[in-house]
Amino acid sequence: MSSVDQQLEELKGEIEAELPADISISDVKYEGPELVVYTRHPKKFARNGDLIRKLASKLRKRITVRPDPESLSDPREAKERIREVIPEEAGVTDLDFHADTGEVVIEAAKPGMVIGRHGSTLREITQEVGWTPEVVRTPPIESSTVSNVRNFLKQERDDRRDILERVGRQIHREEMANDQWVRISTLGCCREVGRASFILSTAETRILIDCGDKPGAEGEVPYLQVPEALGSGANSLDAVVLTHAHLDHSALIPLLFKYGYDGPIYTTEPTRDLMGLLTLDYLDVAAKEGRTPPYDSEMVREAIKHTIPLEYGDVTDIAPDVKLTFHNAGHILGSAVSHFHIGDGLYNVAFSGDIHYKDTRLFNGAVNDFPRVETLVLESTYGGRNDYQTDQEDSERKLVEVINETHDKGGKVVIPAFAVGRSQEIMLVLEEAMRSGKIPEMPVHLDGMIWEATAIHTTYPEYLRDDLRDRIFHEDENPFLAPQFNHIDGGEDERQEVTDDGPAIILSTSGMVTGGPIMSWLRHLGSDPDSRLVFVGYQAQGTLGRRIQNGWDEIPINDRDSRNSGRSSTLTLKMDVETVDGFSGHADRQGLEDFVRTMNPRPEKVLCVHGDERSVQDLSSALYHDFNMRTFAPKNLETFRFK
Amino acid sequence: MSSVDQQLEELKGEIEAELPADISISDVKYEGPELVVYTRHPKKFARNGDLIRKLASKLRKRITVRPDPESLSDPREAKERIREVIPEEAGVTDLDFHADTGEVVIEAAKPGMVIGRHGSTLREITQEVGWTPEVVRTPPIESSTVSNVRNFLKQERDDRRDILERVGRQIHREEMANDQWVRISTLGCCREVGRASFILSTAETRILIDCGDKPGAEGEVPYLQVPEALGSGANSLDAVVLTHAHLDHSALIPLLFKYGYDGPIYTTEPTRDLMGLLTLDYLDVAAKEGRTPPYDSEMVREAIKHTIPLEYGDVTDIAPDVKLTFHNAGHILGSAVSHFHIGDGLYNVAFSGDIHYKDTRLFNGAVNDFPRVETLVLESTYGGRNDYQTDQEDSERKLVEVINETHDKGGKVVIPAFAVGRSQEIMLVLEEAMRSGKIPEMPVHLDGMIWEATAIHTTYPEYLRDDLRDRIFHEDENPFLAPQFNHIDGGEDERQEVTDDGPAIILSTSGMVTGGPIMSWLRHLGSDPDSRLVFVGYQAQGTLGRRIQNGWDEIPINDRDSRNSGRSSTLTLKMDVETVDGFSGHADRQGLEDFVRTMNPRPEKVLCVHGDERSVQDLSSALYHDFNMRTFAPKNLETFRFK
Ligand SMILES: [Zn+2]
Ligand SMILES: [Zn+2]
Ligand SMILES: [Zn+2]
Ligand SMILES: [Zn+2]
Ligand SMILES: [Zn+2]
Repeated sequence: MSSVDQQLEELKGEIEAELPADISISDVKYEGPELVVYTRHPKKFARNGDLIRKLASKLRKRITVRPDPESLSDPREAKERIREVIPEEAGVTDLDFHADTGEVVIEAAKPGMVIGRHGSTLREITQEVGWTPEVVRTPPIESSTVSNVRNFLKQERDDRRDILERVGRQIHREEMANDQWVRISTLGCCREVGRASFILSTAETRILIDCGDKPGAEGEVPYLQVPEALGSGANSLDAVVLTHAHLDHSALIPLLFKYGYDGPIYTTEPTRDLMGLLTLDYLDVAAKEGRTPPYDSEMVREAIKHTIPLEYGDVTDIAPDVKLTFHNAGHILGSAVSHFHIGDGLYNVAFSGDIHYKDTRLFNGAVNDFPRVETLVLESTYGGRNDYQTDQEDSERKLVEVINETHDKGGKVVIPAFAVGRSQEIMLVLEEAMRSGKIPEMPVHLDGMIWEATAIHTTYPEYLRDDLRDRIFHEDENPFLAPQFNHIDGGEDERQEVTDDGPAIILSTSGMVTGGPIMSWLRHLGSDPDSRLVFVGYQAQGTLGRRIQNGWDEIPINDRDSRNSGRSSTLTLKMDVETVDGFSGHADRQGLEDFVRTMNPRPEKVLCVHGDERSVQDLSSALYHDFNMRTFAPKNLETFRFK
Repeated sequence: MSSVDQQLEELKGEIEAELPADISISDVKYEGPELVVYTRHPKKFARNGDLIRKLASKLRKRITVRPDPESLSDPREAKERIREVIPEEAGVTDLDFHADTGEVVIEAAKPGMVIGRHGSTLREITQEVGWTPEVVRTPPIESSTVSNVRNFLKQERDDRRDILERVGRQIHREEMANDQWVRISTLGCCREVGRASFILSTAETRILIDCGDKPGAEGEVPYLQVPEALGSGANSLDAVVLTHAHLDHSALIPLLFKYGYDGPIYTTEPTRDLMGLLTLDYLDVAAKEGRTPPYDSEMVREAIKHTIPLEYGDVTDIAPDVKLTFHNAGHILGSAVSHFHIGDGLYNVAFSGDIHYKDTRLFNGAVNDFPRVETLVLESTYGGRNDYQTDQEDSERKLVEVINETHDKGGKVVIPAFAVGRSQEIMLVLEEAMRSGKIPEMPVHLDGMIWEATAIHTTYPEYLRDDLRDRIFHEDENPFLAPQFNHIDGGEDERQEVTDDGPAIILSTSGMVTGGPIMSWLRHLGSDPDSRLVFVGYQAQGTLGRRIQNGWDEIPINDRDSRNSGRSSTLTLKMDVETVDGFSGHADRQGLEDFVRTMNPRPEKVLCVHGDERSVQDLSSALYHDFNMRTFAPKNLETFRFK
């Protein structure tokens, strides 16, 4: 018997010892980080309200109880009973019974009403029908991403269960290593912005954190080929952790599966969906630009199939010696500060991922409170000595001014924006400004994937700022549903109409003007001196956005997207160019310092990454001088040992 | 045609273009770093004295010319002619003809006389017989190691030629990597003394430097299993470089072959032989102590077969982007400061290995003069703030005093010493002290491998200090042949005789009292209050030597070696314990600082390794403060990137 089987056998014994005599256990299995307990008496189990909690705390495991397939009630009857138990207003849109696991997936407009106070409605369901309910939200704005992901996972259920069982056994394997150490290897994102990728390794375990591309630098990908990365095969990794869905962190995650990786990806549920959206678009863009994409869409599906979503605050075993906890990072939907607790008190490392320290309209500020943390790997996008950003209040005032001026001239405001994050923040600003009369009502056109990204936001309101979340799901005053917002889904024809029409605001991808519909908007409006191009986000070195910001006004326009396919020409930019900073999804220099200053506990060491050479150096020496901690500005391809 | 074949074809063309019409080339091959040119007209080639030098400088390659096997003269006739050409006094002891390569190996007591002024005699030989002569020294003291190695290599000639050809093609392969970087990974020897092991890597090439064990800490071996080491297989290494033969640098070199390594080991010729001696002894000791040795003697032979010996000062291509040059390190016979020139001007790294900065009786001081060097990896054995050692002059005075006192009391002086290095230094001190009457004539018994190690020293006088070398091979006053020196080759009986006899000096291994005949001498003389135990070398933490130095006088003696096999008992040490420092093979704190201060050019970065935690930290901060360079005290398992 393998050590894991033996362990499960023992756990089964311990559980049985805790249970009343009339509740029996038919099987105990690992599925990913969870211990799944199959019982022939699911209803009795559910009636014994505290049982699961008691077991979980006794065994120090996350426990899920499921009915033994033998003891399932008839789905048709169960369906009726469930409909009776759940209040009408919950807006159930789908019930999906899975006899293999005894689970019923309930899709509802208001999941909270399906769950009930402290889960009371869920428990009632099990007491009534024996099935284990699982609840998901019906997207308030229809999202093809969300429904594709859900359908795909439904279809791949069997496969996925095999994966989870394999991963579960891997996580709970016996520790093999005699040695103890903790190391971080840098595979990208050092003294540069882009290609985020790190390996956190112990003698027992190897974890890849992020695997992104570098905007504006096609060939520069993470150093996956070096020995300490995938040199001995992609399956030398135990786990992949994704901090958030931006392509500079996620673009090459699917590539790992092409390289033969077959293990879990830990991330939040919204990041999983956004990663699906953004990586598929990444493949599209590559194809459109005539580049050979590094992988195909099949690999994106593999990534989604291997994702184990975690919620903020869940402490999760991801290896025999590593526990992972995600915390809100305030940067984009689902973005996570990733905290690793290693070796039962041996060491703690937090990767900030990308963070925003202050609250924004969209998100609460980044969490910097941990049980313990010795080393922090900190983004430094705005770590430079002078990288103080305007307060968002002032920025909003400036944006309102710019919009009003442009409106008065009869021009249009074109805002290049990342589909994910800044677009929604600006949408909230615009919605409020129009509602309160600070700017005139006018159409706000959303081009590229912004609409779809917004739909995903509304699917996961738990990840938004508290009051916004409440507006979305308690009060039915979802600002994203405001009538000004128009989805550009009519292509060039619709863009031409908008161009010919009156004042409007256009939010369009890509955020750094490296391609996408923004190129088309530049063609349409670039030569209109009454219109404005307004940058609201970070422009990386080497991107066209950065060049325009720096004053370039002769812009190479590839006409591929337009009707004169394939021709290349130069556009003389006549529209005003403005930068309204303060909307960045990144903490500015002050925010980064505040994040560290108020961090609890204060880390001993900080590695400053994800910033230009100057930014990481400046931040590193500032933190060293101000807080007397050991700070580093690593290079790519280094390995730091902490323990 | 492979790129290497094409390259060889081109080289052949270039060579032919340089040669007079009456000299023809039949083949051009790589053998290790050398380009071997086969000619049908070896005699004419040899008559054209400057030809080889001109070719070498034109092609920027090391060139060897050999006769085409078709054009060889009869060995019997050749033998006679060679005997006539070489002066009688050269003392030729063997002539060995190899028809496969057209080489004749000439073993002679005085190789210099076979070579002649600027190689004139060698050239004369080829002009006369066509064969290519190769000269080796007949050991003045018979050495079983040297003769075993030579016989083994003779027997494995074919195999070795295959290896050299393979390695040669590997070295001269086309560069594959697009990227450029230079990194050092630490696999051992950081904040500790022992298990020296580093990987120097570029995008193209991976080189392992040293692979030793850790005295006094059996299980602590270099971290070979981590991904950046042999994680993707032992053949992911391009080359192994061995700085010197001490086991803390060499013990696990043969293990690499058990792991499947099949590439070259670059080291000096004496280091190759000493490595053979010491690793075979290492296996012996393990077996005697009932441990399973990590490899068997077959692997030692593999290591010897794969060794490509280099001389000090030879600049050698060992990879498409790496040139290696050894320089005298002054530490033990054949020890080398290893200088790596990377990527045609990209970067230079020097590994000090173990060094002694000042001249000693045995060796010139370490070389610290290089064309360029940006990073120095520096040993720090005596890097501690107070690790100043007595001047050797004073130390010798003290040793003389201790010997005289002990002699007067009728006691014996027991000196634990490494077989290699310190023993020979002390032998030189004793020989001179007796010759000049500073101490009375008395027997000096050499126990353990000291005799054999001394024989190896006399085989390679070119590696000894200039004046000692001259004494050994020009003037026939070899101090190692002094009649006081007695080889203990009669085991316990002889030791008992020595014990029962009058005053004497005993030099015995192991140098840190971790086993070997020194244990027997402690049993024999440990309880004699008139005798003295004198430490003259570094005692590592965890060794019995260090404990005795620290005052332990209850010594566990395992009687395994004696007649009461297997019993363990405790010996109360009654002999005086003295430490006479200043004979160390290692630079002291002053020497290390001087090495860096006078280094030309001054390196930008220094990694302090091969020292206790305190020593590396002290040295690192001292070098930083005194010379304003970037200094580090790495941990094991880190990777530093320099370029
Ligand atoms: Zn981001
Ligand atoms: Zn980022
Ligand atoms: Zn040494
Ligand atoms: Zn050493
Ligand atoms: Zn040493």
